[in-house]
Amino acid sequence: MIVVMEKNASDGEIELVQERLRRENFQIHLSQGVERTIIGAVGDRSRVDLEFLEALPGVEKVVPIMKPFKLTSREFREEDTVVPVGDTCIGSGALQIIAGPCAVESREKYLEIAAMVKERGATMLRGGAFKPRTSPYSFQGLEEEGLKILAEARELTGLPVVTEVMDQRSVDLVARYADVLQIGARNMQNFFLLREVGMVKKPVVLKRGPSATLEEWIMAAEYVVSGGNPNVIMCERGIRTFETYTRNTLDLSSVPVVKRLTHLPVIVDPSHGTGKWRLVEPMARAAVAVGCDGVMIEVHQNPAEALSDGPQSLTPENFAGLVNNLTRFQENGRS
Amino acid sequence: MIVVMEKNASDGEIELVQERLRRENFQIHLSQGVERTIIGAVGDRSRVDLEFLEALPGVEKVVPIMKPFKLTSREFREEDTVVPVGDTCIGSGALQIIAGPCAVESREKYLEIAAMVKERGATMLRGGAFKPRTSPYSFQGLEEEGLKILAEARELTGLPVVTEVMDQRSVDLVARYADVLQIGARNMQNFFLLREVGMVKKPVVLKRGPSATLEEWIMAAEYVVSGGNPNVIMCERGIRTFETYTRNTLDLSSVPVVKRLTHLPVIVDPSHGTGKWRLVEPMARAAVAVGCDGVMIEVHQNPAEALSDGPQSLTPENFAGLVNNLTRFQENGRS
Amino acid sequence: MIVVMEKNASDGEIELVQERLRRENFQIHLSQGVERTIIGAVGDRSRVDLEFLEALPGVEKVVPIMKPFKLTSREFREEDTVVPVGDTCIGSGALQIIAGPCAVESREKYLEIAAMVKERGATMLRGGAFKPRTSPYSFQGLEEEGLKILAEARELTGLPVVTEVMDQRSVDLVARYADVLQIGARNMQNFFLLREVGMVKKPVVLKRGPSATLEEWIMAAEYVVSGGNPNVIMCERGIRTFETYTRNTLDLSSVPVVKRLTHLPVIVDPSHGTGKWRLVEPMARAAVAVGCDGVMIEVHQNPAEALSDGPQSLTPENFAGLVNNLTRFQENGRS
Amino acid sequence: MIVVMEKNASDGEIELVQERLRRENFQIHLSQGVERTIIGAVGDRSRVDLEFLEALPGVEKVVPIMKPFKLTSREFREEDTVVPVGDTCIGSGALQIIAGPCAVESREKYLEIAAMVKERGATMLRGGAFKPRTSPYSFQGLEEEGLKILAEARELTGLPVVTEVMDQRSVDLVARYADVLQIGARNMQNFFLLREVGMVKKPVVLKRGPSATLEEWIMAAEYVVSGGNPNVIMCERGIRTFETYTRNTLDLSSVPVVKRLTHLPVIVDPSHGTGKWRLVEPMARAAVAVGCDGVMIEVHQNPAEALSDGPQSLTPENFAGLVNNLTRFQENGRS
Repeated sequence: MIVVMEKNASDGEIELVQERLRRENFQIHLSQGVERTIIGAVGDRSRVDLEFLEALPGVEKVVPIMKPFKLTSREFREEDTVVPVGDTCIGSGALQIIAGPCAVESREKYLEIAAMVKERGATMLRGGAFKPRTSPYSFQGLEEEGLKILAEARELTGLPVVTEVMDQRSVDLVARYADVLQIGARNMQNFFLLREVGMVKKPVVLKRGPSATLEEWIMAAEYVVSGGNPNVIMCERGIRTFETYTRNTLDLSSVPVVKRLTHLPVIVDPSHGTGKWRLVEPMARAAVAVGCDGVMIEVHQNPAEALSDGPQSLTPENFAGLVNNLTRFQENGRS
Repeated sequence: MIVVMEKNASDGEIELVQERLRRENFQIHLSQGVERTIIGAVGDRSRVDLEFLEALPGVEKVVPIMKPFKLTSREFREEDTVVPVGDTCIGSGALQIIAGPCAVESREKYLEIAAMVKERGATMLRGGAFKPRTSPYSFQGLEEEGLKILAEARELTGLPVVTEVMDQRSVDLVARYADVLQIGARNMQNFFLLREVGMVKKPVVLKRGPSATLEEWIMAAEYVVSGGNPNVIMCERGIRTFETYTRNTLDLSSVPVVKRLTHLPVIVDPSHGTGKWRLVEPMARAAVAVGCDGVMIEVHQNPAEALSDGPQSLTPENFAGLVNNLTRFQENGRS
Repeated sequence: MIVVMEKNASDGEIELVQERLRRENFQIHLSQGVERTIIGAVGDRSRVDLEFLEALPGVEKVVPIMKPFKLTSREFREEDTVVPVGDTCIGSGALQIIAGPCAVESREKYLEIAAMVKERGATMLRGGAFKPRTSPYSFQGLEEEGLKILAEARELTGLPVVTEVMDQRSVDLVARYADVLQIGARNMQNFFLLREVGMVKKPVVLKRGPSATLEEWIMAAEYVVSGGNPNVIMCERGIRTFETYTRNTLDLSSVPVVKRLTHLPVIVDPSHGTGKWRLVEPMARAAVAVGCDGVMIEVHQNPAEALSDGPQSLTPENFAGLVNNLTRFQENGRS
Repeated sequence: MIVVMEKNASDGEIELVQERLRRENFQIHLSQGVERTIIGAVGDRSRVDLEFLEALPGVEKVVPIMKPFKLTSREFREEDTVVPVGDTCIGSGALQIIAGPCAVESREKYLEIAAMVKERGATMLRGGAFKPRTSPYSFQGLEEEGLKILAEARELTGLPVVTEVMDQRSVDLVARYADVLQIGARNMQNFFLLREVGMVKKPVVLKRGPSATLEEWIMAAEYVVSGGNPNVIMCERGIRTFETYTRNTLDLSSVPVVKRLTHLPVIVDPSHGTGKWRLVEPMARAAVAVGCDGVMIEVHQNPAEALSDGPQSLTPENFAGLVNNLTRFQENGRS
């Protein structure tokens, strides 16, 4: 990293910074210019908070040079991580289409939609059993009963099941039923939960927080991987901007960037990313064209009766149209 | 709420929307204009997700008219909520100054700084026992040992203690030691945690999430209050914007807005809100001038040695300067 | 529009609002609920600022129902606008590839790159003659000499030329040389300039401002169209968000949204939208897949020697690779 | 600046970067670490675009160390700039209160409100003669007639007049009538206009663009100052964020930051910054408490009849209340 000293920093202040850096095992290059002194420091940034330097007297700013993540970085591991899920895998080149309703609403309805999306081309199932909502007065999910329904749907369809875990207390419970654990956008920096899923054998879909930078998102993955679970799948689902026409602004450039900075697979959720079902198909096409490893699509028999996220859900017929079309947009020779 | 139908919505589509609204006990006013039909619906929005309407065929958009929160709204309760904390209270007109280091680093250091900030004018103590960080390789807090040190500091100084609870499993533990439980910005929409602190007898400081709208922040408070705990203190701590010079952009207009929409007290954290100690004093002055009920200030004996948030921490001397100056900026006759 | 009155609005206040609305030729529907009175108003919103209503006593908020734009709206004109440019046109289904350097740097270099991009598949040329920069100390463009070079390049290649006009004083000058006038992102709300290009016979590329909502962007187009120039091409080029890895966040969902709300063609600029040449190809693929009518690509013989925007410029070879690949991603049957 | 090379950058690539830096008269410090090579470059950044470096092969990123502005920087000039305006000045410690309606609507109404705000404590007058609006169908201003009314109001009240110039063609015209020229937020990066007002003898109020970083805002001031006009007054008026309750988010931390980075005075516009008259007084108090040199307040005889910006305008009575209260919040001993 680079420590830029203030114009009038004293020799004592410059010396103190160097001392502190040496204590943390950094190698130091001092560069005393006409206008100010700059201290270069080479070492293992991942073990140190840079912040302590900014608090030292005479320091103007600290500029990190290296990225703060290690195990997830492309430099640490050049080949793509391929995450095994049931009989298939994510990140191997084949496009995964994860589909289903936002919430598991009843056994009958879930088993029906699971069969419908399978028939129309889904390769994995989704559906939430825990659904805490922004309003305390809304539907909150079927909880363990929902997990059992998900497991039954897997038996019937043979497709693996992705479902959200919202709370470290229920990680074991969810892991008992699901094939892939999903960390929701609001929990992306719930470090207790990240640590807990780091200790589990099941793969993890890690959604990007609505105001998370790419670096913060990757650091959240680093939490899971450094806890012992290498099977993290990144999921772009839109960020919050000033635009209000769409629910979020889907940042598709995050796909090539995260694939360049890390070795992890990246999938895209155009349903939450736009909040409007009419935008789901064009944005799914774009997500595939940009090079993602899979898409996550909300589908409901009757979006107008959905207990959650109806406006962004496709009908089974619209979903069939989307799937038909999608693989054609894959870039085979992507680097 | 108002449901705007598409230009070419059919009679059947218009009828269906009305049916669904009646089923949810809304009263309906139909207005058929030349260009389009508009359906007004009067009823209890708090029990219904508006989303289901947007998913109905022929609906262009749904415009909420009433706010989605009830118990926390100024309309529900006209008088200010005054939250009792130890021998004092927040929201009664006296300015609370909550001070201390970001993290409890050791018994000796915490007891020392607690005495120092008390002597210089702090009215409550702060300090974190659980410190999960964005990097898994950073200091993570003293946990229960830290809570015991906080309790000891309360004995010594007589000042109430505010500390963060990050995880629903430790709510009871933290409540045993602390006077006020803090919900951090990243947990503002951790609904499991909100529900849990709703069942506790201790007051709750609820920090605004970095990308939360005012309505979402108030809805999070509604979770706690509707769970049975009326003693919520809102804490503005900055939102994420494109500006990078400051760590966050402190949105001081949220203070008068939240005080107008709700009856809850509002405090401001200029330390996290700016991320730079030099900005803490001017922004604390501004926060008091705008009408907040208290400020939360990070203070450390030696910011350059702090394990966390050094760059935004004041020295005890700077803190003394700030306190001396602060009450002068209070607006007594504020409406 | 809907005017929501405050809970305790008096009869006189309610009457005043109705009077003012009638004066503006709105039809009124009064709805007096238990909790508050709501006034619906039907009429021509485009001629009135809604703001005046919000300033009336007793008004809580004003909710617009209809969009504020008319001539550009899909409701006003159902068929797509097809903009004729030279022998070709934008918006007819064929993908336009507009390529060239950020700035015209010299006659020799521009004529060379123009020939190179034509040979590799460009269908139009781009290049700036006026280049005011964020720093007053940077290269500022060749001005009229640059325009002459652009015209010469058109003669040589037969391709139409797109170039920016930055200032109403030079609209006539630029229109004399260019085939298409570009309004830059920073000028999207320069209403003097919009009015001036509304009076010109040449088509206009209107870039989205970095913090413009979709509605504001469309209103800027409405300025040009209402001034008499129907040939507006919308250009998405990214918005400013908290993410700093990319120069802007390219909002690809704006393509289907603007095509749904208006009848105008939409092109995408992935060079400015990302600021990094490695992201240009994947984002161009995604832009085509989402349904845009053209892409604008910065190409330079030697990006490392470019006087402007080098980091986001493709080499001619990379550009050739991009073009080869691009039309395959077009969705033919797009609705 | 620091150039970070890619992990596998070749010797030739490293050499090329050094050559290019030497050509621009930078001094070079090479630091070859185990993981990557870092090149430090010391020289005059203000004359060079850093971008060209990022386009060189093998370069990972370029990190600027020094700020890009010179003449406006606190390092260039330690003492505060005090801008003379008529008989008074901005930046000398006395609080300026600039008040008046958004637009000059008629001679009679403007002269009346000018007298009213003077009587209630205004020290300067404001009012727009050119009012291009986001809708082409709205009121567009009285133009030169409006300027004459402003000049007449100055005669009557003795107060200096601030008014916006929107277009380089009318700079001379506006400068003939006004005491201070205002550059509006949407024109903050209209470099033609900035250059033009740099050649004028009148002081300039430079509003911050709604999505401008502090550095971009200061660079816009650098344009004016480097053009020969040292009398620039910075005006914070809010930035665009995801929050929609307020029209903009007033970023009060910009006041101490700009005063630290530059020597220019800073004023605050809480009327545009919030868009709601009820928030104007508390935010004006906060602006004064944070240390600004003046506030700009919209006042209208009858906000409900205002042709522009009614909802954020104070009545003369509310303005009187605000002024009475305001100077009490000044921090005298501010550094």
